[in-house]
Amino acid sequence: MTQPKAPKAPNAPIDLARQLARFDEHWAPKKIAGLNDYEVKIVKVKGEFVWHHHEDTDELFLVLSGRLTIRLRDGDVVLGPGELYVVPRGAEHCPVAEEETAFLLLEPAGVPNTGSAGGPLTRAAESLD
Amino acid sequence: MTQPKAPKAPNAPIDLARQLARFDEHWAPKKIAGLNDYEVKIVKVKGEFVWHHHEDTDELFLVLSGRLTIRLRDGDVVLGPGELYVVPRGAEHCPVAEEETAFLLLEPAGVPNTGSAGGPLTRAAESLD
Repeated sequence: MTQPKAPKAPNAPIDLARQLARFDEHWAPKKIAGLNDYEVKIVKVKGEFVWHHHEDTDELFLVLSGRLTIRLRDGDVVLGPGELYVVPRGAEHCPVAEEETAFLLLEPAGVPNTGSAGGPLTRAAESLD
Repeated sequence: MTQPKAPKAPNAPIDLARQLARFDEHWAPKKIAGLNDYEVKIVKVKGEFVWHHHEDTDELFLVLSGRLTIRLRDGDVVLGPGELYVVPRGAEHCPVAEEETAFLLLEPAGVPNTGSAGGPLTRAAESLD
């Protein structure tokens, strides 16, 4: 459930921990900022996502808490807090987290979370601000 | 001084703390990853930079350690670890840090650190990988 937004002062920084505390839903990216035509999103996950790829874009993952495994066809990447990885465009990947994990996701606006795969886990990113 | 790079395993994540430990220089952005035509850079700073703006791009700052003040013409933004701020394109800004501060910087490749201002602090981002 998304909590009501806190009043935002002019020029206020975006506190990642505070924004993460505003929702509980898994695998549902929340937009927290824009950067030109890119979106900065935060995501909470637990369990296994679906194998998919993004035909037209790289995708940056920066883990904020927990532990994220990004399965790739040629091996796994395991990310802890403060670690990032860029999945190259076209590379099939499947994010998995045994414990609840939060990460920052960065890619052009409008990229669907399930990429090529579609299916029931597909979500449009909701704005938190 | 830039330390020799550690051997990088295939599909290795990028550990921000480990990359920050590889250099000491202030106000000299280091590239650690690419995301399409964007660059992910890390920077260590202390003291005051120069007032400048970037005509064609927003600029994302995510503080990793210390405390960064981004002076803007309409007020300051103060960022601690885990806080981010996007300076809009065209907005004049001047980063300042009283203590040594590290942050992640994200913007399109090739954007000069001093933007419109130029001058002796201008540095091309060096690659750490």
